[in-house]
Amino acid sequence: MPIKHFVLAFLCAVSCSAFSQKIDYQKDSTMMRQLYTESLENGQAYPNLRSLCQTIGNRLSGSLGAEMAVKWGQQLLQKYPFDKVYLQPVTVPNWERGTKEQCYYTTANGEIHKLTILAIGGSVGTDGIIKGKLVLFKSLKALENADKSEVEGKIVFVAQHMNQDYINAFHAYGNAYPVRGHSAVAAALKGAKAVVIRSLSLSESDFPNTGTMHYVDSVKKIPAAAISTEDATALEKYMEHTDKAPTLYLQMGCKWYPDAQSYNVIAEMKGSKYPNQIITVGGHLDSWDVGEGAHDDGAGIMGSLEALRLLQAVHYRPTHTLRVVFFMNEENGSRGGKMYAKKTKEKGEKQIYAIESDEGGFTPRGFDIDGEQAFTLAQKFKPLFAPYFIHYFKKGSTGEDVSKLKAHYNSVGLFELVPDSQRYFTIHHNNNDVFKNINRRELQLGAATISSLVYLLDKYGE
Amino acid sequence: MPIKHFVLAFLCAVSCSAFSQKIDYQKDSTMMRQLYTESLENGQAYPNLRSLCQTIGNRLSGSLGAEMAVKWGQQLLQKYPFDKVYLQPVTVPNWERGTKEQCYYTTANGEIHKLTILAIGGSVGTDGIIKGKLVLFKSLKALENADKSEVEGKIVFVAQHMNQDYINAFHAYGNAYPVRGHSAVAAALKGAKAVVIRSLSLSESDFPNTGTMHYVDSVKKIPAAAISTEDATALEKYMEHTDKAPTLYLQMGCKWYPDAQSYNVIAEMKGSKYPNQIITVGGHLDSWDVGEGAHDDGAGIMGSLEALRLLQAVHYRPTHTLRVVFFMNEENGSRGGKMYAKKTKEKGEKQIYAIESDEGGFTPRGFDIDGEQAFTLAQKFKPLFAPYFIHYFKKGSTGEDVSKLKAHYNSVGLFELVPDSQRYFTIHHNNNDVFKNINRRELQLGAATISSLVYLLDKYGE
Repeated sequence: MPIKHFVLAFLCAVSCSAFSQKIDYQKDSTMMRQLYTESLENGQAYPNLRSLCQTIGNRLSGSLGAEMAVKWGQQLLQKYPFDKVYLQPVTVPNWERGTKEQCYYTTANGEIHKLTILAIGGSVGTDGIIKGKLVLFKSLKALENADKSEVEGKIVFVAQHMNQDYINAFHAYGNAYPVRGHSAVAAALKGAKAVVIRSLSLSESDFPNTGTMHYVDSVKKIPAAAISTEDATALEKYMEHTDKAPTLYLQMGCKWYPDAQSYNVIAEMKGSKYPNQIITVGGHLDSWDVGEGAHDDGAGIMGSLEALRLLQAVHYRPTHTLRVVFFMNEENGSRGGKMYAKKTKEKGEKQIYAIESDEGGFTPRGFDIDGEQAFTLAQKFKPLFAPYFIHYFKKGSTGEDVSKLKAHYNSVGLFELVPDSQRYFTIHHNNNDVFKNINRRELQLGAATISSLVYLLDKYGE
Repeated sequence: MPIKHFVLAFLCAVSCSAFSQKIDYQKDSTMMRQLYTESLENGQAYPNLRSLCQTIGNRLSGSLGAEMAVKWGQQLLQKYPFDKVYLQPVTVPNWERGTKEQCYYTTANGEIHKLTILAIGGSVGTDGIIKGKLVLFKSLKALENADKSEVEGKIVFVAQHMNQDYINAFHAYGNAYPVRGHSAVAAALKGAKAVVIRSLSLSESDFPNTGTMHYVDSVKKIPAAAISTEDATALEKYMEHTDKAPTLYLQMGCKWYPDAQSYNVIAEMKGSKYPNQIITVGGHLDSWDVGEGAHDDGAGIMGSLEALRLLQAVHYRPTHTLRVVFFMNEENGSRGGKMYAKKTKEKGEKQIYAIESDEGGFTPRGFDIDGEQAFTLAQKFKPLFAPYFIHYFKKGSTGEDVSKLKAHYNSVGLFELVPDSQRYFTIHHNNNDVFKNINRRELQLGAATISSLVYLLDKYGE
């Protein structure tokens, strides 16, 4: 063909490829602006989260707080015009911190120093007081490489710092995660009596961070605790400059109980065209037993509910069934996520997309996406999100709870809301995770962002 | 030409236009990674800001705090290997809040309510106690449209809320700014005794926000104060549901003094090739007389200093002269900015670029840019910033201080760091603007972002 035609064909190929996406940018941007405006002007995620934090407080699986949170969650969902609100039974592990932990060390010349600690979730207790010479390792790897003779009969201190270099703070967490999860097994393998680690935190503070850990059946279960970063820094510095090992004293009253009965809390809007095709949005209702579980994950569940409430507020009628799930037991077992995936499969439902929010209630930046079709589709939504300063739509691992769907649905598209990550590891699993550290606009922007994605997936998905 | 050649030419045009930018993406991304790593691992902006907040505290132009801040700033700059550190004299306005403001209202049946207020900066005092019937206006516009008879002899309450809909919170501020700046004149024109406004804040809190205002010579100067948003909401609701106007009682001891002597505090690294071509980076040293001026603008000046320190730390030798300026008096006069622009012109220096940081120490999102050449150049830097989740490079108005350069330099390229804006109007000009509300990683990421831009402008600019 002549050049003129070629040019036309070329330009057409470029513009037609955009056209073939069939995204109605004008209509959709109008709808999204309505969702954001409703969220910023009349948002209910923020007052609902205040109520959760102040009425219930923290809510570890098996605790009274968790039981009350299930009732509270069900009552809250019943206030909105869902087609159905129900509880889904799930048994959960039941670990209790017991009486407040105490920890001290004495120097060779007898000086006494208190350490602010939290038992790591799932640890055994000390059965009275444990006392032992402290041995310092700068990293988990150094402990794993140590000679047994250096460790035997002692208490191990793993001083590994989270790596500050990562721009996304969750990558630093992923990198340091084994320090909390695996140090007890690594230390016990070399004959240690107990282990203390530097808290997984990116700030220097007096608030130690708990979280989950694991034991191995074949290895002795020794107590494990996390020291606040301020105290860990001071102890590390002291130990680096002395030959004489300090003595650590540790008391923790942790106990394991038989599994407890609990529930996922669920509400749904029935789809007008494809009622058996489900778009799930959710976070987890349980929290660690410190703070108020405000960012982790009160923000996630209140943002997920708000995402659907915003659609109700603008009188949107979904074609697929939209479901919000407050998952139980994400923190120490993921039993809620597993049960939800299993039951939905048993009922013959088709899970087409699921969105999780479990990275805090901070300014939304985009989504991590798992699933080829979901990823391709999401790229087309990018221009719609740009006016909201939302640019991040990348492949990545998604939330613990929704990822359980992959065991039963090969082609499910998974999303996780990615908020700004910089402050997360100042509040994660510690007593700073309280409502007063929530910013209303950040939380409501996150909710509107999830809501917009639900709308777009419902309209253009599958 | 035949189609094949045309295609090649077309592709070449696309790729060659990229190539002609001559940006060495590989080398520059390595350099930027060094700057970010140094900032996150060994950052000094955060401890320097702690020192400023705790050693000096707030520092309104003309106050003892401002005088000490000048000394402190000079001493701090002298600790780093700059080629030159100096003070630039500037006289500044000198307004003092005086004794703490008090404000109450009584309802028609005599109930007493306290209102938490701050005098608006620059207001006249009440010269004893002012008492008057309150009249409510929902907006400044409503006040301006009111009949004089509604207002005369009364105290005006302008209850206008900041608009929550804007995604960039600074746009909401720009929109509401006249409420604080102009209400006193608007009310006085209709014969009011005094005016109180709802604080310019995007959150409901008990922390009123001060800031600047203006009078007009031909109009009577009446006292003006800002009520905390919580109290303003309650008062507005009460007044909407009663016919009987409450009585307001107001006492403010504000005073104006003769201009005071002060200084811009300046340091520079001499350029190896173009010593007379200047890239300026800065923020303002003064603050309002509440809180600690942590975000506004301690974060800006400590981030600006850090931007150059990072370049020193990686042993970068600039080709142009790099200069950090702690401007005096941005908050209520901009005398420092004006003086700096005037003096640099008088000395025959060529200001090629200037970067301001005065929107808080939050996660950096990009830059507002003023100047065609600067805007075009910055687009080429975008891929280098993407790994740091920095996407925003748009035309927009830049900071108060650097914008004064435009009076003397037609072609200067101006930049303002744009951090995430959502939390700014919870702390702006109030007692919440304290060091404990600074996040170390957010602040250090901002400093590395400015540093990277300085590096790129020095390398590719002009």
